[in-house]
Amino acid sequence: MNLVNGIEGGRIDPADRGLAYGDGVFRTLRLRNGKALLWPRQYAKLAADCFALDITCPGIAALEYDIEKITAVHTDGVVRITLTRGVAPRGYAIPGVANTTRIVGWSGEPPVRSDAHGIRARWCNLRLSRQPALAGIKHLNRLENVIARSEWNDSAIAEGLLLDSEGLVIGGTMSNLILMRAGELVTPALDACGVAGITRELIVERARCENMPVRIAPVATGDVRSADAVFLLNSVIGIRQIATLDDLNWKMHPVADQLRGWINYAENL
Amino acid sequence: MNLVNGIEGGRIDPADRGLAYGDGVFRTLRLRNGKALLWPRQYAKLAADCFALDITCPGIAALEYDIEKITAVHTDGVVRITLTRGVAPRGYAIPGVANTTRIVGWSGEPPVRSDAHGIRARWCNLRLSRQPALAGIKHLNRLENVIARSEWNDSAIAEGLLLDSEGLVIGGTMSNLILMRAGELVTPALDACGVAGITRELIVERARCENMPVRIAPVATGDVRSADAVFLLNSVIGIRQIATLDDLNWKMHPVADQLRGWINYAENL
Repeated sequence: MNLVNGIEGGRIDPADRGLAYGDGVFRTLRLRNGKALLWPRQYAKLAADCFALDITCPGIAALEYDIEKITAVHTDGVVRITLTRGVAPRGYAIPGVANTTRIVGWSGEPPVRSDAHGIRARWCNLRLSRQPALAGIKHLNRLENVIARSEWNDSAIAEGLLLDSEGLVIGGTMSNLILMRAGELVTPALDACGVAGITRELIVERARCENMPVRIAPVATGDVRSADAVFLLNSVIGIRQIATLDDLNWKMHPVADQLRGWINYAENL
Repeated sequence: MNLVNGIEGGRIDPADRGLAYGDGVFRTLRLRNGKALLWPRQYAKLAADCFALDITCPGIAALEYDIEKITAVHTDGVVRITLTRGVAPRGYAIPGVANTTRIVGWSGEPPVRSDAHGIRARWCNLRLSRQPALAGIKHLNRLENVIARSEWNDSAIAEGLLLDSEGLVIGGTMSNLILMRAGELVTPALDACGVAGITRELIVERARCENMPVRIAPVATGDVRSADAVFLLNSVIGIRQIATLDDLNWKMHPVADQLRGWINYAENL
């Protein structure tokens, strides 16, 4: 089920800049019992990413109206919201007048993986390029993620970890990364590449409230190898601990349940 | 006028990966008197870019059939061909089965700028990120070009020049660059970023045939400043000499006509 500018079954103009140049942003969020989880935070990030690219963000009411049309049919699943700079004549120059294209699509629940024993992950060969002008933004230029995700086919491997061109650890192909290490939470700084997701943001904020040591900092592969626990997180999978990363193995760490508790609490506010 | 998979007025499925992730490639070419200029070379580059991303390239006949539908109506102008990995469920993983989406769109002639006195250009502030896995490919992830092109509004400035994150000169926002310097042609190596266009390729090949010294090499800003002539080129604008680049000025160089002659010859084969 897809809504384009509020119209069910709507289609996209081939001259849309989202298609022509990847000129837009998106979010993926969870529906549960008819509720879009962490919606105010999701909208805030959408608006911030639009602002960063100088795209006009639709008002929150328009998107809520779209989501209501979906929840009238599907109470659970995944919603992807895509906003593009809209239809314009050929050329990179941003048109003086452009109407943001709003796409809200539903898809079913992803396959559930048990949290009990953690997930398997691998290191990817692709190195993310460093582009401070786009870092952190969940924009539509995602070929690096596509290439990285194409490196493995083994369905037992849930995620691939990515380094940037300087060898710093950035996160997974579709997830952010948080380490528990030397008594503190550490998540990679995303000022040169990567997507700054809202689950990560929420964990960092809550840890600060709880006086749990937490740091946003460059992360080296050695930091991962010597971590007490490594977590991957996004709005769809929640928080997953890595049990196996190529030659490394970790036992389940009790902080996982604490972090999940923070997310559940925020989701149910 | 737009054809989507051969259908005039066709529209794009919102679940197309070209829109979702910029997962596709494109070309822009010139129509003149009902002929798609340099078509065999354009198709070869399209096929090569598809191959690099493991996208199935349509056969040349399908695209020629689309172009014929356009030239039946418009004998001159610009044609953009976009190929995407097609419609697929959510997720970065490349689907096992995907049907390439084929978009062929026409637009009118760009505004003609006189070649006689050269063009004005500027240096852009944005630095291109270095990603060897995507370098040279004309893919749909073009936000860097969009951001760079948004740095100026003065319509007297025809193009902006881009450096990469290491300070090497790569080219214009929508064009390749060739210098005439110390008796040889030099064009930036595009193994870390940039788009390797076919006009540049054609010039390099022909120069080699003619025993004119030509080199593909890293280019520093000092090389541009000390060049005898600086040319910008693409399939739509042809070959333009820069007359003014911020504080620098150049007189028109006689090699310009020679390079244009090579392109004209190839276009009329």
